[in-house]
Amino acid sequence: MNTYKLIIQYKGTAYQGWQIQPQGKTVQGEVNKALAKISKCEDLKTIGSGRTDSGVHALGQTVKATISLEIGNDELKRGLNSLLPDDIKILAVERANESFHPIGDSEWKEYIYLFSTNRETSLFHSDFLSIYPYQLDIERMKKACELFVGRHDFADFQCVGTEVNSTTREIFECELVEFKSDWGIFPPSEDVFSLRVKGDGFLKQMVRLMVGTLWNIGLSKTHLEELESSLAAPTGIKLGAVAPAQGLYLNKVFYP
Amino acid sequence: MNTYKLIIQYKGTAYQGWQIQPQGKTVQGEVNKALAKISKCEDLKTIGSGRTDSGVHALGQTVKATISLEIGNDELKRGLNSLLPDDIKILAVERANESFHPIGDSEWKEYIYLFSTNRETSLFHSDFLSIYPYQLDIERMKKACELFVGRHDFADFQCVGTEVNSTTREIFECELVEFKSDWGIFPPSEDVFSLRVKGDGFLKQMVRLMVGTLWNIGLSKTHLEELESSLAAPTGIKLGAVAPAQGLYLNKVFYP
Repeated sequence: MNTYKLIIQYKGTAYQGWQIQPQGKTVQGEVNKALAKISKCEDLKTIGSGRTDSGVHALGQTVKATISLEIGNDELKRGLNSLLPDDIKILAVERANESFHPIGDSEWKEYIYLFSTNRETSLFHSDFLSIYPYQLDIERMKKACELFVGRHDFADFQCVGTEVNSTTREIFECELVEFKSDWGIFPPSEDVFSLRVKGDGFLKQMVRLMVGTLWNIGLSKTHLEELESSLAAPTGIKLGAVAPAQGLYLNKVFYP
Repeated sequence: MNTYKLIIQYKGTAYQGWQIQPQGKTVQGEVNKALAKISKCEDLKTIGSGRTDSGVHALGQTVKATISLEIGNDELKRGLNSLLPDDIKILAVERANESFHPIGDSEWKEYIYLFSTNRETSLFHSDFLSIYPYQLDIERMKKACELFVGRHDFADFQCVGTEVNSTTREIFECELVEFKSDWGIFPPSEDVFSLRVKGDGFLKQMVRLMVGTLWNIGLSKTHLEELESSLAAPTGIKLGAVAPAQGLYLNKVFYP
């Protein structure tokens, strides 16, 4: 068998997430179909670096693909792109070691979350950000971002569904910035914010729960002290809702 | 009955165009459904200023709506927006005269067409522009744009399907410019061009045939003289293909 590392970009809107499901269209399902067609074999395997949920996008998902076919990197990239739908694209292909593991071997992962506080945000952006049309105290939210940085037990920031050995994760960077962009001919997108979070790993829906918590902090419904307590010793109580999927992007996975 | 003028924005990707069809989802169908729900009446009528085709977007479509209900403009706008799907939005509502006709009364209409010549254009743009990945002579295309301006018989620039009394139309402005935008976090969209065409009316698929012709001129497959001849006296021969729908936007309809 031959092992390849694929960097994949996709728009998640039309998919039930990365991970293959018994029913419904998934990104992994589409990638596997294309790989099967190229390698003319059923005996293939793919592992993604993160199970992006339904509607979540990826700017750079990393995938390990094991296929029987031996083929040049560029040839595999071109072949896959000619077979994949328009909303999934292979950005890069390289040979990988058989032992490479896209989750275990990653040093850090980065997510980006985009949201607008403007109810009048153009509908042309609706697949790409979420709208939270309230007046938020951005400075207070930036202080909360600093609290997230470090090694904490994020047990209050996970949804059930995936079993994990430990809920402790280290966040290296967490930054909330106003996001300036004219998005082309579409009405200028004012009041758009971008949260960038870089960490050694993420629990199920962790970033979206962090965003929901930040929103509550921005509304002063949740206090900074409550966040501090939850990160110091999980309480079993969530400090915010799960923010909508369409604002979330798996930006990058880094391997040493 | 009460008459309203609606300015509507929509993303055409999920629709079979503006005009209601016996089968399939249309923008007019969605607007009618929302109007029926608000006015609690079946006896309503809508007329659009242009029949945008399947996949074509509108930044400002104008629609005449006749309903039995008398309601405040803001209230109608809010009510419709709460019922319409995320990809259709009412931008403005005003009262109109019963005699108002969105096609007959318009002084000009403006379309915008976006395309990229870069094969590597990010998939996040795929609903919003078309990709024509060839080296084009933009200066020559700009000369062709000048030839379109004026009053001409555009018989070679229409597709069959809609009967018209005359194929003569006046183009007031036709401009091709490089379109600078970073489109936010998505990879910068290089080599994106925007064609803006303003005229007193447009035949079926006229703008998309103009774009297809401009592409051929940019490739030097079609000569400027051929375009001049066709506009002076239609030959029955098309000078280009119909450019894909996803790049086209009905930008604005102007009433004196």
